[in-house]
Amino acid sequence: MTKTQTKALNPIHWDDSKESVFVIDQRLLPYEYKEIEINSYGEMAKAIKDMIVRGAPLIGIAAAYGMALAAKTGADLEEADKLLGSTRPTAVNLMWALDEIRLLRSSKPQNLYSAILEKAKWIHEDDINRCKKMSEHGAEYIKKKFAAKIANKQKLKILTHCNAGALATGGYGTALGVIRKLHEEALVEMVYSNETRPRQQGSRLTAWELAYERIPVTMISDGMAAHCMKTQMIDLVIVGSDRITANGDVANKIGTYQVAIAAKHHNLAFYVAAPESTIDRSLESGDLIPIEERDSSELHTINGELVTAAEGVAFFNPGFDVTPNELVEVIFTEQGVFNPKL
Amino acid sequence: MTKTQTKALNPIHWDDSKESVFVIDQRLLPYEYKEIEINSYGEMAKAIKDMIVRGAPLIGIAAAYGMALAAKTGADLEEADKLLGSTRPTAVNLMWALDEIRLLRSSKPQNLYSAILEKAKWIHEDDINRCKKMSEHGAEYIKKKFAAKIANKQKLKILTHCNAGALATGGYGTALGVIRKLHEEALVEMVYSNETRPRQQGSRLTAWELAYERIPVTMISDGMAAHCMKTQMIDLVIVGSDRITANGDVANKIGTYQVAIAAKHHNLAFYVAAPESTIDRSLESGDLIPIEERDSSELHTINGELVTAAEGVAFFNPGFDVTPNELVEVIFTEQGVFNPKL
Repeated sequence: MTKTQTKALNPIHWDDSKESVFVIDQRLLPYEYKEIEINSYGEMAKAIKDMIVRGAPLIGIAAAYGMALAAKTGADLEEADKLLGSTRPTAVNLMWALDEIRLLRSSKPQNLYSAILEKAKWIHEDDINRCKKMSEHGAEYIKKKFAAKIANKQKLKILTHCNAGALATGGYGTALGVIRKLHEEALVEMVYSNETRPRQQGSRLTAWELAYERIPVTMISDGMAAHCMKTQMIDLVIVGSDRITANGDVANKIGTYQVAIAAKHHNLAFYVAAPESTIDRSLESGDLIPIEERDSSELHTINGELVTAAEGVAFFNPGFDVTPNELVEVIFTEQGVFNPKL
Repeated sequence: MTKTQTKALNPIHWDDSKESVFVIDQRLLPYEYKEIEINSYGEMAKAIKDMIVRGAPLIGIAAAYGMALAAKTGADLEEADKLLGSTRPTAVNLMWALDEIRLLRSSKPQNLYSAILEKAKWIHEDDINRCKKMSEHGAEYIKKKFAAKIANKQKLKILTHCNAGALATGGYGTALGVIRKLHEEALVEMVYSNETRPRQQGSRLTAWELAYERIPVTMISDGMAAHCMKTQMIDLVIVGSDRITANGDVANKIGTYQVAIAAKHHNLAFYVAAPESTIDRSLESGDLIPIEERDSSELHTINGELVTAAEGVAFFNPGFDVTPNELVEVIFTEQGVFNPKL
């Protein structure tokens, strides 16, 4: 924790006086909070590639600022576009942001640098606004749903999985955005953060982010959620999403599906918060989403140290799972509240 | 892995030629396989206290051998009984084993050392026999249940949680005993071992133990079980237990309940294997079992290294949870197969 604790968490920002970008080095969290100054598009490409910044929306914003840095220094914009676009080829938002800048360039603005910079700032602002709108829709819905409890002066106990926070977006978050909004209205008693093995985004990023924002947070390991639900420590669950198919099935970090089943078993609401851009209408259902299998080292090492017998033991390491629409009460987007079963 | 790999896993044994006890140092697993020679009751007390040996049945056996060592060296047996009994005060089996030795002493046998040694060997053998009987009952039941699959030349895919194996008992195990028995009959395709955070008994002990015994094992993290069930990687679940109440509710390592819910959601059988001594008929239901809350350091450090933000973050670390009888198909003990709902 640092002295900047009272500032809203800002994973990226443009400094007008220095004409450069500052990002939080997320590789160091939660051990160290350090902002890095980025002065050229080459440095930005490296920051994306090395995962100094991560999270699909945040990567898009970073690439747009990278193009502004390229224009500032009079660099070859085609080269910059190509290099930035090659950093993380699967992140849809990265392509979208670079497309937006390319469209702007084709309109041949008088002052290219200031035009691109304005566009990058707009992309950044737009992401925050979408997250805020989504969070307002979510908070309103949840306040209605728990009106009796709230009228009784009771606050909400919320479980989340992985990190769908400011750190993954322009600075407000999706699932953590809804939680942030509820907290602004003094309606959050406790957020339970699943550790989220094998990469610990819950304990490394979500717990840190919420503690930074002074939102009450308790970390639990991934096997504890059902026990916490049974002992009435949890009122509702909210998570983000990596892809939502046409029928409302939700792909998200591995472990999400198990939490959704436990929520259903205890008659607890399970919510998803995600921008419209996450909805993939080209896929009929979640069964069609390919599940990335990641390197086994994530399971048998922690922080690079061996934590199990690797010899003679196999490892299965799916990065995501799919929660069928029947386990999801509603989905919050910047457009409103959707029931995936309808 | 060591050259002893082809020997059956033997967490404790008396060496007749050396007149001493050898135990596997379980603190070093899975990083190192090392047997320690124990020559006095004082050394045995330290081995139990320092968790060189752990697991309730194994601790009882170790204490009995400790009394034999005391008799061998002509030590004060009252002192030895007191010291050994003070090592792990909550383990019921420890008290039971020392009671057995005390009863024997009160019968004033001619050769006290050989009488106590025979009794200790009997306690050890008896534990293995109970585990083997339980495992036979379990394997028979499972073979009947999956008769069609087995007739179709298909083997079984089994999920387990925590370590209920040879390492926790005299050398055969409860849940892993049933799996071992099925493997002896070439009926096991794969055992999925939940990592079992926060203490990783699944990845540290179960994965190691099964790899040692050359039983196919795949480690997964605790959030993956439901995804594996959905994608038909798992046929059945089997776990051990720390306490079973009169109505058949099952207390076991935290995370067990969540797996049981996921199994029910996928219509998969959920089995418990435990000796009769685990059944606590004095408690009506699982709600009455006190759930031990353990130190938060287990959550925020792994192998002593900090893995989350500890400042501003709270931790909840229950050691066990309770699975209600309606989620358990049957319980296997050395006496037979019991339906906890009847």
